[in-house]
Amino acid sequence: MRSTVGWKADRDGTRLERVALERRDLRPDDVAVRVDFCGVCHTDLHALHGHTGDGPLVPGHEFTGTVTAVGSDVTRFAVGDPVAVGNIVDSCGTCAMCRIGQENFCHEFPTLTYGGTDRHDGSTTLGGYSREYVVRDGFVYPLPDGLDPAAAAPLLCAGITVWEPMSALGVGPDTRVAVAGLGGLGHLAVKFAVALGARTTVLSRSADKADDARALGADDLVVTTDEQQTAAARDRFDVVIDTIAVPHDVGPYLRMVAMDGTLSHLGHLGPVTVDMMDLLVGRKKLASAGSGGTTTTAAMLEFCARHGITADVEVLPSSKVNEALERLGRGDVRYRFVLDMADLA
Amino acid sequence: MRSTVGWKADRDGTRLERVALERRDLRPDDVAVRVDFCGVCHTDLHALHGHTGDGPLVPGHEFTGTVTAVGSDVTRFAVGDPVAVGNIVDSCGTCAMCRIGQENFCHEFPTLTYGGTDRHDGSTTLGGYSREYVVRDGFVYPLPDGLDPAAAAPLLCAGITVWEPMSALGVGPDTRVAVAGLGGLGHLAVKFAVALGARTTVLSRSADKADDARALGADDLVVTTDEQQTAAARDRFDVVIDTIAVPHDVGPYLRMVAMDGTLSHLGHLGPVTVDMMDLLVGRKKLASAGSGGTTTTAAMLEFCARHGITADVEVLPSSKVNEALERLGRGDVRYRFVLDMADLA
Repeated sequence: MRSTVGWKADRDGTRLERVALERRDLRPDDVAVRVDFCGVCHTDLHALHGHTGDGPLVPGHEFTGTVTAVGSDVTRFAVGDPVAVGNIVDSCGTCAMCRIGQENFCHEFPTLTYGGTDRHDGSTTLGGYSREYVVRDGFVYPLPDGLDPAAAAPLLCAGITVWEPMSALGVGPDTRVAVAGLGGLGHLAVKFAVALGARTTVLSRSADKADDARALGADDLVVTTDEQQTAAARDRFDVVIDTIAVPHDVGPYLRMVAMDGTLSHLGHLGPVTVDMMDLLVGRKKLASAGSGGTTTTAAMLEFCARHGITADVEVLPSSKVNEALERLGRGDVRYRFVLDMADLA
Repeated sequence: MRSTVGWKADRDGTRLERVALERRDLRPDDVAVRVDFCGVCHTDLHALHGHTGDGPLVPGHEFTGTVTAVGSDVTRFAVGDPVAVGNIVDSCGTCAMCRIGQENFCHEFPTLTYGGTDRHDGSTTLGGYSREYVVRDGFVYPLPDGLDPAAAAPLLCAGITVWEPMSALGVGPDTRVAVAGLGGLGHLAVKFAVALGARTTVLSRSADKADDARALGADDLVVTTDEQQTAAARDRFDVVIDTIAVPHDVGPYLRMVAMDGTLSHLGHLGPVTVDMMDLLVGRKKLASAGSGGTTTTAAMLEFCARHGITADVEVLPSSKVNEALERLGRGDVRYRFVLDMADLA
């Protein structure tokens, strides 16, 4: 086994503690990555809140780093390569979804970067809040030149989660896009929509996000607590990307979707109740998205390199991980925390 | 006022009784229609069950008949023309939806054929279970030659309700369509899908619908209570038309939708709860539909004439309306009752 260091949850998930961790010895198709930067995702908070103390929990599933060793069969990577890893590290590889590079929809469920079960040795996967990660080469992406590795880390989860629906829905110059919620996901959705040439509107509960929206390139902001503005936005957007991370009524957002348009609801994966009339009137569609496959993730990274898109991040030394999580919990971040793992050296 | 005869609900909606009714004198843009055949829709049952005795209730919103008089401004119709009327008889005419012929999505809500409020005199509209109907000319359709007027009547509600989503979702020769529920809506959905060239499957709780499905032109039947068949149907259909008229879990049907496909849920217009994971995995979409606009209704009738499509109906004299409703309530119909109004002469 290989020795490394990382941040592991205590029994009741209230704090992360620095501990020694083990990584597996490299299999023929494995890559060892020195984790340089790891984003702090809402999912990490959910995992900590749900932690029961059964099994180890080391969060982190959007990171960039440097290849330090490769297995005997690996040809795509060499020591020293800058790389990125997202929230999936393995899948069955044989089902219809895996065959088209949509491993996020693997019929056997993909192996998650942390809290998953390794398909070979049955161990619980430990995430990217650590100095080293060992991962199957097919789930490692070359980090394109020119992308800052700290600011690029959140692309691997927040980025791909908003990219997948926008790409699948064909967002382009003729599309009117609205983004609800201006957090880690939302701010990247705005950047993508703008870069794709869409007319882009931010939906926010208060007008004080107007400057932020403009700074990200949005054309417009609709204050959703203002009845007049909401009424004027009725049937207005071909695509609404709803990134609001807490349970909420999707009705008001569906009513802003244009005829034959789609609301893609991210960030909340439980049951959602919809009034069918909100879908019927205007032939609207409800969709959901989360994470992505290797094909779309590679396409997204290529797009980001071409358009110079990364997340707006606040980088903290990994020793401040508990502070980052606490501040994320109360929404005090613009727009994503990234942990610098250099202090784990 | 004009005098006619029709079937009106008693105080608590348990029975319809034959009564004298009044229709308005023709406005310049009105057409008087002798109702020849009127379909019996599930909505009629719902309306009777919900009837509180406030205001008159004469059901019926899919009928064919013959023009008997026209207002001074009417140029599209002449006395003797065979015509059809659906569940909408007026709308604001000025909103974005009305302007494109999608009056079913009128921002001011369209005037329904019965139980609606006339936009001019404020009266409650009385439906097609009657010998005469007076209706604004823009909401009257010429009945194409060659369509049997009794069997064509259900096209105006059941037909357009399934046509709209199939047309909007681009069902054609490359589409794999599944239809859940083989009733008034479902059997027409199968006929449309087959005529559009789609590979068409019926989803049924029991195998005993297999002959019916084949008779309607379907290629295949999946028994949804058979776990093996359901598992084999996973991710298989680009479009699922769910016509099941009672509240049910849409999860099993969503799991049969192929990647980037859509489930269109008809027939139940209240709140529906969806597990977002059923939408996320495979980037699937949930939609709903009901009724149609004048543009799509005219297109559907033209398609039906070209392909010889009408409903499979059981025609009863209108005096048997209570029997028809009772039998519809327990699903004893293949596939739509139509009332012959000749006995109201």
